[in-house]
Amino acid sequence: MTNITIIGSGNMARGIGTRAVVAGSGLQILDRDPAKAAALATELGAEVTSGTLTSPLTGDIVVLALPFDAAKDVVTALGSALSGKTVIDITNPVDFSTFDSLVVAPGTSAAEELAALAAPGATIVKAFNTTFAGALVAGTAAGLPLDVFIASDSDEANAAVAAFVTDAGQRPIVVGPLRRARELEGFQFLVMTLQVNPAFEDFNWNTSLKVLV
Amino acid sequence: MTNITIIGSGNMARGIGTRAVVAGSGLQILDRDPAKAAALATELGAEVTSGTLTSPLTGDIVVLALPFDAAKDVVTALGSALSGKTVIDITNPVDFSTFDSLVVAPGTSAAEELAALAAPGATIVKAFNTTFAGALVAGTAAGLPLDVFIASDSDEANAAVAAFVTDAGQRPIVVGPLRRARELEGFQFLVMTLQVNPAFEDFNWNTSLKVLV
Repeated sequence: MTNITIIGSGNMARGIGTRAVVAGSGLQILDRDPAKAAALATELGAEVTSGTLTSPLTGDIVVLALPFDAAKDVVTALGSALSGKTVIDITNPVDFSTFDSLVVAPGTSAAEELAALAAPGATIVKAFNTTFAGALVAGTAAGLPLDVFIASDSDEANAAVAAFVTDAGQRPIVVGPLRRARELEGFQFLVMTLQVNPAFEDFNWNTSLKVLV
Repeated sequence: MTNITIIGSGNMARGIGTRAVVAGSGLQILDRDPAKAAALATELGAEVTSGTLTSPLTGDIVVLALPFDAAKDVVTALGSALSGKTVIDITNPVDFSTFDSLVVAPGTSAAEELAALAAPGATIVKAFNTTFAGALVAGTAAGLPLDVFIASDSDEANAAVAAFVTDAGQRPIVVGPLRRARELEGFQFLVMTLQVNPAFEDFNWNTSLKVLV
C-alpha cells in the first residue's frame, strides 16, 4: 500500500485519514501544532505517526488537508521536500465573503495556482474536493461508495491516487489534466452554496456528488 | 399544470417531452421542419400538438431543446414572441473540436449569452443541462429520480420550472442566479468527457449527476 502523509488535523484530515486507515496505508499526520497532529493520529490508530511541518515526509502521497491560503503557504514553505511526491490539493477556493464566486480568476483553479508554486518534481493532483469530511468518515452516501474526482497532468500520479481511492473503498474518477480542476472547484462551490440554502433541509455539509448509471 | 412548448425534435426534446407528458402538461413541439415536430408529437401522445417556428407559442415555459448555436438563432428569430415566457436553456456549449473547453469565455455561460440576446420580458432559465436524454425518458437513474439543476435571475421562473420538474417526477434543485449556469455548464462538460473516456465502460451518455445524502 502507498504511504500517505496528511498535512492538517481538521475535519478533512480526519476524513481522508479514516480512508487511509481503511486502505491499509502507512499514515503520518503533520500539523503546525504537533499536539493537534498527535491527537488526530491517536484517534485514527496506534500505527499512525505524527509530527510537525518540518518532520521528514514518510508518505509518497502528501495530502494538503488545508484551506487554500494555508495550502499555498505550506507548498511554498516545504519547497523541495515535496519533490518526487504526489501532492493532493483538496481545496475549494470559495470567496466566503460573498459566497458568490471563487477567489481564483475565471478559467483557472486553486490547483493550478498551487502547481505554479510547487517545487520542481512535485506533482499536484486535484482530488477529494467534492467529498465532504463526514461522508469520507462514513465511506458511503445513500449506501453507495463516494465518487472521488481526480485530475493532474501526470498519468502516474493519477493512477497512484486512484489506487489509494480504490483501496479506501471508494470509486476513483480520473477526469483528466490538472486544468479540469477548474470545473471541479466551480461545481463544488455550487454544491457548497446548497448546504447553507434553507430550501434544502437535508443538505448540511453531508451530501455526496455522484455520477450514477 | 403548466403548458410547455419544446423547440426542437431531437433526443433532448424527446426526453423533456416525455417528462412533460408525465407531468400532465399541455405540450407543443415545434421544429423548423414541421414533419419532424409532428412525428415526435405523435410519438409522445395524441394530445401533443406540433408546428413550425412561426407557430403561436402555447407554452408558458418554452424549452430550447437545441444546440447552443441553434438556440442563439432561435432566441434572436423569435424575438418578442418570447416576451413573458420562461425560456429554458438546456445547452452545454462544449468546444467539440478539442473537447477540452467551452466555447463561451471563462467566467460566463451560454445561458448568460442567450439572456443577452433575448427580447425584454423573456426570462432565460438554465435547466436540464446535466440530464442526458435517455435518463429523462427513463425518469430514473440507479432507481432514483434525476436531479434537475435550475438557475435564473427570476424567483418566479425558478419556481415555475421547479414545479414542472416536481410534477414530472424528478427532483428540482434551484441553485440560484443565472450566473450559476457557468458552474453547471462547466461541470457537465467534464461529465461529457467521461462518456467518451474508455476508462469508464459503463458511462455511455447514460449517466445522471446526483447530490446524494
